[in-house]
Amino acid sequence: MDYQPRPADVEFVLNAVLGATPRLSALAPFADFDTALQAQVLEGAARFVGEVIAPLNRSGDEIGCRFEAGEVHTPPGFRAAYQAFVEGGWPALAASPADGGQGLPAVLEAVLYEWMSGANHGLTMAPGLLHGAYECLRHHGSDALQQRYLSKIATGEWLATMCLTEAHAGSDLGQVRTRAVPQADGSHRVSGSKIFISGGEHDLTANIVHLVLCRMPDAPPGPKGLSLVLVPKMLDDDTRNGVHCERIEEKMGLHGSSTCVMRFDEATGWLVGEPHRGLAAMFVMMNSARLHVALQGIGLLDAAWQKADAYARERRQMRAPGPVPASRGTEAADLIAEHPAVRRILDTQRAWIDGARVLGYRTALMLDVAQHGDDAKARERAQRWCAIVTPVLKAACTQQGFLGASECLQVFGGHGYVREWGIEQVVRDARVSMIYEGTNEIQAIDLLVRKVLPDGGSAMSGVLIELRDELDASRDADADVQRRLAQLRYLTTSVAMAAHAAPTLPYEVADDYLRVVMLAMMAWAWARIDMAADGDARWSAPCAAFRRHALPEFDMRLGMVKRACEAVTAAPAATA
Amino acid sequence: MDYQPRPADVEFVLNAVLGATPRLSALAPFADFDTALQAQVLEGAARFVGEVIAPLNRSGDEIGCRFEAGEVHTPPGFRAAYQAFVEGGWPALAASPADGGQGLPAVLEAVLYEWMSGANHGLTMAPGLLHGAYECLRHHGSDALQQRYLSKIATGEWLATMCLTEAHAGSDLGQVRTRAVPQADGSHRVSGSKIFISGGEHDLTANIVHLVLCRMPDAPPGPKGLSLVLVPKMLDDDTRNGVHCERIEEKMGLHGSSTCVMRFDEATGWLVGEPHRGLAAMFVMMNSARLHVALQGIGLLDAAWQKADAYARERRQMRAPGPVPASRGTEAADLIAEHPAVRRILDTQRAWIDGARVLGYRTALMLDVAQHGDDAKARERAQRWCAIVTPVLKAACTQQGFLGASECLQVFGGHGYVREWGIEQVVRDARVSMIYEGTNEIQAIDLLVRKVLPDGGSAMSGVLIELRDELDASRDADADVQRRLAQLRYLTTSVAMAAHAAPTLPYEVADDYLRVVMLAMMAWAWARIDMAADGDARWSAPCAAFRRHALPEFDMRLGMVKRACEAVTAAPAATA
Repeated sequence: MDYQPRPADVEFVLNAVLGATPRLSALAPFADFDTALQAQVLEGAARFVGEVIAPLNRSGDEIGCRFEAGEVHTPPGFRAAYQAFVEGGWPALAASPADGGQGLPAVLEAVLYEWMSGANHGLTMAPGLLHGAYECLRHHGSDALQQRYLSKIATGEWLATMCLTEAHAGSDLGQVRTRAVPQADGSHRVSGSKIFISGGEHDLTANIVHLVLCRMPDAPPGPKGLSLVLVPKMLDDDTRNGVHCERIEEKMGLHGSSTCVMRFDEATGWLVGEPHRGLAAMFVMMNSARLHVALQGIGLLDAAWQKADAYARERRQMRAPGPVPASRGTEAADLIAEHPAVRRILDTQRAWIDGARVLGYRTALMLDVAQHGDDAKARERAQRWCAIVTPVLKAACTQQGFLGASECLQVFGGHGYVREWGIEQVVRDARVSMIYEGTNEIQAIDLLVRKVLPDGGSAMSGVLIELRDELDASRDADADVQRRLAQLRYLTTSVAMAAHAAPTLPYEVADDYLRVVMLAMMAWAWARIDMAADGDARWSAPCAAFRRHALPEFDMRLGMVKRACEAVTAAPAATA
Repeated sequence: MDYQPRPADVEFVLNAVLGATPRLSALAPFADFDTALQAQVLEGAARFVGEVIAPLNRSGDEIGCRFEAGEVHTPPGFRAAYQAFVEGGWPALAASPADGGQGLPAVLEAVLYEWMSGANHGLTMAPGLLHGAYECLRHHGSDALQQRYLSKIATGEWLATMCLTEAHAGSDLGQVRTRAVPQADGSHRVSGSKIFISGGEHDLTANIVHLVLCRMPDAPPGPKGLSLVLVPKMLDDDTRNGVHCERIEEKMGLHGSSTCVMRFDEATGWLVGEPHRGLAAMFVMMNSARLHVALQGIGLLDAAWQKADAYARERRQMRAPGPVPASRGTEAADLIAEHPAVRRILDTQRAWIDGARVLGYRTALMLDVAQHGDDAKARERAQRWCAIVTPVLKAACTQQGFLGASECLQVFGGHGYVREWGIEQVVRDARVSMIYEGTNEIQAIDLLVRKVLPDGGSAMSGVLIELRDELDASRDADADVQRRLAQLRYLTTSVAMAAHAAPTLPYEVADDYLRVVMLAMMAWAWARIDMAADGDARWSAPCAAFRRHALPEFDMRLGMVKRACEAVTAAPAATA
């Protein structure tokens, strides 16, 4: 069973829960955007993803990318599917019309990538980095570079990579050693080795544009001495640049995507942005890239859920306890969907998917507002939302993508562990997103140490007030969420105070703190869904499952962080 | 880096924490057993596992078992390693000397299998089913069958399988259709198809003895009509029996073990035990088989931990927060082992391994007592312990084996996702143990619905009192554990009462209830370790990590079960 996007679910979240269309049409570039256009784009995307992308998932995993004499061959069908993707205009969905794009809202692109990841994570890796490269070049590229590369990248005619990691420099980019030596003609000669380069080499496009983090000869040490250099595989005269794929990694999953070791050998490149300001140029795309990774988690979890749900509605084993289910008929055994242990898995994972969608799509909307809002205050608020919420979603959604897919595998019993049903592939594929684009531990530190604490928790407070203001305190469920948001606010203050006494404390509680934030936001999301759904059974079972099985973790994590703070304040001199 | 058993850690648990030797030497067959013999056996086992079994793990995964024209070829080296295993007398470690065994305690066999699973899960599957088959045959086989098969199986000269599952009958064995037709000579003709048969076919031994669950023509429907029939691959006259391997499964992991689809085609077999009493014959080996699966979880987690620990002591990334660690020296970046997020993973997983060992080895000791105790009361108490604790350990240790291995993978960052470091194999291999030998959801139901509730919680109370009596309430930590044990006792009563009003409730809370039991027992285990360790730093970091990061789940799950009970008692007629 291949993954099949379900636009109605997504439209409910966008329209009934988030009121996306009026928010979007208030922005100048989307003045004509309406739910009819939205529905049309989503229907088209669902059809394309379901018919073209999804059927290649299994063979993409089993055959995988092959490496031969410096070339990478993508799995059968990938090339044609990618061609169709480009011809359909999908890569350029949210790109500016000036660059050959369709100028649609980022939130539709977010939905498209969520679905594509659910359908075929490996193939989706290829265009996954286009958007970051596009934004990076658009904001920091010289006119000459933009002229040569921007529309090729916007339209997906050429694919792009981000070359950051080196063997000794993973999370610690300050250790990057690849060198860029300025030449008389304004170009740079780039030499060095990069690892874990997704799509570093492949046969999908005629050219590949690498954005390479490197160090110029006069650079200060550490992260403030890094520059970003654009290095194409093919030069303008159609000769091959000094860019070589040395090998591709054998991985746990994601076999449809080549993970390359790249060697740059006196390759010609051009600086993007200021010298030594490479990280700043890169960070432009950080929020949208991280949000896309969060959406991968949601997409993969939805793929796992669809498989488990379908299996549970077909497979019969033993009598379910309790009243006779309507589905029993004359059968001796009941559908496993009727067994409480299976029901719990399905409803709880459905709750994670739906709630995370509310948060993910809202964040994508905020990317649109941050870029196109005509009110500086609104842009700033949107920016703040993205800065705080993005690392939370990246960590929490990718973790759930993996753990939830593993739960869904459990629904299959022994059949889940064999290839046949495709569910084990989802688990293997999903694991990587907890690592790349900043490990989940680094997301937690980014949230607490870099985003929340430096301003004493005021940006976080701002986000919590926004959430509170959208609740209806006369509803019980909403009042419960308000209480949690207030608890989180107090907790933030406690951590900020304890951090003075014990500077390592934030690092010790960062993961728990992130979970508290995610669960508070999920509670908010489900309060909003619950109100919009108005008793519709499609949403009430996952809503109940969320409150019963997922939400209790909120109090647990809150208590863990609290106790850690109290321990420090009780013995203030101990770790200071 | 291959897995390497560390006997000192295990001996500390056996001697200092559990006082195993005096308990064992009080049993007649082990009167001469002492710590010196124990140390000798463990040293020998550690050497054998480290030198012979562990080095084949990687190639066992990558090459895997191959299926060709009905034959299964195990990976290179497996045959020789298995031969060495047999020649070393390891399969017969705990078998009776009368059957060619060494008559050592089950607890040593438990340690051996934990280590072997950590070293090479795939290869360990082969002899993993021997012990169950041995016990089954010893208790239920006719004299003639015992004569022909018992010592061959005890010594591992022939391997054995359990043929239970059919395509439509997984957790629901009542649906088994394989037929056994009695013949005039007392034999049976067996026909039918079985799936998921571990080691159903291979090249390790000259014969393979299948214990097949089937249905005789006059059998009542459902699980009470199942009979157990022994069907050898080779008959006494050295002709091939009608037993065929149709294919082997492609799996997520465990590639070193063949998972076979077996067809029995008028195969000759002999009844084991009474007609229609096949399940009873099989249940003889259930506790020890489930305990071995729990130990697989511990072994695999230890393997993952060893890899992550070694990597974290070598890899340097960024400065750790807080005081300068001694390991910094003149380096710019610190060992990742110094970073709180990594430290937390390593210490918490270590805590699961050490605590679970205390519980696992104690349960193995109870298997020895249940079998050899000369006091009927003591035997009964030991039996009760095994009945209650085994499903808890099977579910909790295999879950931690998978989730904890995935945490350890995270320590490697991107390097964890590629094959090279071997950690992703551990995650893939570990996943299966949450499914087989009864899924973890079925363990939870077994615990609560079949073991705890039928006697109104009295057996569970008995176990809790045993635990309490071994605590020292004058110690703070022990008093905290006492409080938790009492909470669990009250909880059990609440569930029993609520179950009257709502018969489906136990099925809904079974997973949470099992977690409460596991965490209470883990708290007990760590109180015991803490007392025995007397401040030794080897044990104090995981002890602190357990209390800080793992134990808070106790209150969370307790609350979840409590609220579910309260909801039912508040509306007694709703689901009754």
